[in-house]
Amino acid sequence: MRLSRFFLPTLKEDPKEAQIVSHRLMLRAGMIQQSSAGIYSWLPLGFRVLKNIERIVREEQDRAGALEILMPTIQPADLWRESGRYDDYGKEMLRITDRHERDMLYGPTNEEQVTDIFRSNVKSYKNLPLNLYHIQWKFRDEVRPRFGIMRGREFLMKDAYSFDLDYEGAKTAYNNMFVAYLKTFSRLGLNAIPLRAETGPIGGDLSHEFIVLADTGESEVFYHKDLLAQKTPDRDNYTAEELQEIVDQWTSFYAAADDMHVPEKCDVSDADLVTRRGIEVGHIFHFGEKYSNAMGATVAGPEGKDVTVSMGSYGIGVSRLVGGIIEASHDDDGIIWPESVAPFKVGLINLKSGDGACDAACDDFYGKLLDAGVDVLYDDTAGRAGEKFAKMDLIGLPWQATIGPRGVKSGVVEVKSRSSGKKQELSVDAALDLLVGKS
Amino acid sequence: MRLSRFFLPTLKEDPKEAQIVSHRLMLRAGMIQQSSAGIYSWLPLGFRVLKNIERIVREEQDRAGALEILMPTIQPADLWRESGRYDDYGKEMLRITDRHERDMLYGPTNEEQVTDIFRSNVKSYKNLPLNLYHIQWKFRDEVRPRFGIMRGREFLMKDAYSFDLDYEGAKTAYNNMFVAYLKTFSRLGLNAIPLRAETGPIGGDLSHEFIVLADTGESEVFYHKDLLAQKTPDRDNYTAEELQEIVDQWTSFYAAADDMHVPEKCDVSDADLVTRRGIEVGHIFHFGEKYSNAMGATVAGPEGKDVTVSMGSYGIGVSRLVGGIIEASHDDDGIIWPESVAPFKVGLINLKSGDGACDAACDDFYGKLLDAGVDVLYDDTAGRAGEKFAKMDLIGLPWQATIGPRGVKSGVVEVKSRSSGKKQELSVDAALDLLVGKS
Repeated sequence: MRLSRFFLPTLKEDPKEAQIVSHRLMLRAGMIQQSSAGIYSWLPLGFRVLKNIERIVREEQDRAGALEILMPTIQPADLWRESGRYDDYGKEMLRITDRHERDMLYGPTNEEQVTDIFRSNVKSYKNLPLNLYHIQWKFRDEVRPRFGIMRGREFLMKDAYSFDLDYEGAKTAYNNMFVAYLKTFSRLGLNAIPLRAETGPIGGDLSHEFIVLADTGESEVFYHKDLLAQKTPDRDNYTAEELQEIVDQWTSFYAAADDMHVPEKCDVSDADLVTRRGIEVGHIFHFGEKYSNAMGATVAGPEGKDVTVSMGSYGIGVSRLVGGIIEASHDDDGIIWPESVAPFKVGLINLKSGDGACDAACDDFYGKLLDAGVDVLYDDTAGRAGEKFAKMDLIGLPWQATIGPRGVKSGVVEVKSRSSGKKQELSVDAALDLLVGKS
Repeated sequence: MRLSRFFLPTLKEDPKEAQIVSHRLMLRAGMIQQSSAGIYSWLPLGFRVLKNIERIVREEQDRAGALEILMPTIQPADLWRESGRYDDYGKEMLRITDRHERDMLYGPTNEEQVTDIFRSNVKSYKNLPLNLYHIQWKFRDEVRPRFGIMRGREFLMKDAYSFDLDYEGAKTAYNNMFVAYLKTFSRLGLNAIPLRAETGPIGGDLSHEFIVLADTGESEVFYHKDLLAQKTPDRDNYTAEELQEIVDQWTSFYAAADDMHVPEKCDVSDADLVTRRGIEVGHIFHFGEKYSNAMGATVAGPEGKDVTVSMGSYGIGVSRLVGGIIEASHDDDGIIWPESVAPFKVGLINLKSGDGACDAACDDFYGKLLDAGVDVLYDDTAGRAGEKFAKMDLIGLPWQATIGPRGVKSGVVEVKSRSSGKKQELSVDAALDLLVGKS
């Protein structure tokens, strides 16, 4: 993509309304624009990151055997009356009346909706286990939306729902998602810690939240230093026993958020206890029969009797992760994207746009990168060199390749790694090898 | 995907509530489930088709130089008060009051929202031309939602918005989208006819709608028989002149919907005039300064003076196209998917699941198709042969491959084309070659 044809409205000054670094950098990098309080438009750069995160989340759900569906944003209130949550939910639920005076709502989550799909279609234990997920916009009418897309009102979430014949089956489904989450966050370049959590309004008796470590995180977490030394699972098709072993291993280390951590009761030595800040990016729940019972989701069991299915739900904050990754990966100059989610892999800087030789060398290098399938943002604009470097640092592409008049003469491209800051002067071919990923 | 692990709740009987064939077949094929009037969940089979259509629409927008963004579903009423449409829109607009008593709405379209993004960020003619698009859920509170997702309330639409310095520039942007639409519908396996259209509530002085031909279509269309003999444009980066030539050529033939067709005024001979039925799947508008004027979207022009930008908007009904394609491509047995949007390319039928030799041959064939990157739905269930064939015909995958005890002995796979009905008995290798697409 040529920058001259892209839409990248960056800001040189820090916007006043942004209190946290991810909000500030997303506004400065032209990733989002506020539409109203807690509601944002995603501009091209931000949209590309959002899509990359969504893709990785989807791939790991698919690998885990979950099936993708798409439930609507607007739900009928009657479904929520069946579970009793229509009254429980309070003012965070955006309530809507349609033209025929029917009570509707903008879904804040989908337990009722998916249970309705299940009970309408699945009649036999033979169709179990089943895990249905979707990636859809949700709405929670926060009283004080803040921190940009980190605590917005309209947000993109992946939510999966598992259905099993009994508690043990649902436990395996839960463990399966636990392991999928470890893989997902690892691919996103994040250190994520699973914490035993309260189940809150979702209900149930087993729950973990996944916290991404970031110095600027919203809450404090305490954990045993060996926790993050665990190997991330990397295989598919683990057996139920293997899943349980992985979960047991990851949960054998102490880990607690500030609201659960009681220093007197924590038996980890001071030398082993790490205190960091973190951001919640995922939450999984085993809630058994809470919704299937209230809504009559049963199947014919192996002995012919009706069995109420055992359920769990599994959320990942897809749009929130954009902010979470920035909180975890930035410096004073801007964002540092992990390669897996970067909006482009390479930023190509033409140091003297308008100079014939320089333009020709850059155009040629750009074409070669495109031919090799590399996503490139090519700054072909007339800006000053200093501005171009600052903009590339701000938007945080993993690699910067710079070609100027001096380099054209000597056949040299300067390649910089955004994360390490390391610069190398390379021949065109060596630079291509590095950026295409052959070397 | 093994059918035993998929979620495909097909129906044997026609559902009573469905009046048109696409609605009937989508319910019978387990593609959608109604949530409330005019609002549907997309089940795995339907979701896969929706995503394939979305991907093709996106690729053609990207090829045309449009930049993808994502605007929120919930918009502030104040934006629509600026254009005057908040009062104009009537009861089709879903109006919402949030917890702070602010007037909001679920966007039925996005002219105001995108004009706000433009005026906040673009200050100079040097950043033009610009075309921003998004693929997002919309809501129109139809008084009588019907025909399944064809006239639903919550629907997925691609809408693009172009910004140019003057009328001529906007005309080129319009022609560019016109040509992109011809390419898009062709890739979707559709015959689409551009018709000169009324601009209606969007406004402006130039508009075309794109009508897909289907015997079961909602409206009647009249056109010169040579219209569909035109070559679909296949290149990228046409010049403004080339774009105009293509549009001129396509619009040189008579074409009109029933509300515009006046037999006495139509100068096409009866021998040349074709009458068919059709479904609207796209609509493009050149409306000039209607919104930019009302909302103050100006840029500094080449001579330094502020210039009000000239705009157009370009919609494709992505979810509607799922129904439109079925209306255009089905028979008495079910859906016939064009390969480009099919949920799977191949349906593999095991005629005797549970038989060791049959299972082994099917598993082996399945593995080889997967290894070759072919999307396969493998019916490994215990159903009867007749039921399995009927289900595959119903869901309309382009190719069926059947392996039974007789074929296992003779090393033969029966391959059937869903569209032609032609069956061939082939060796395993020849069947693979055909299905992988080498032969």
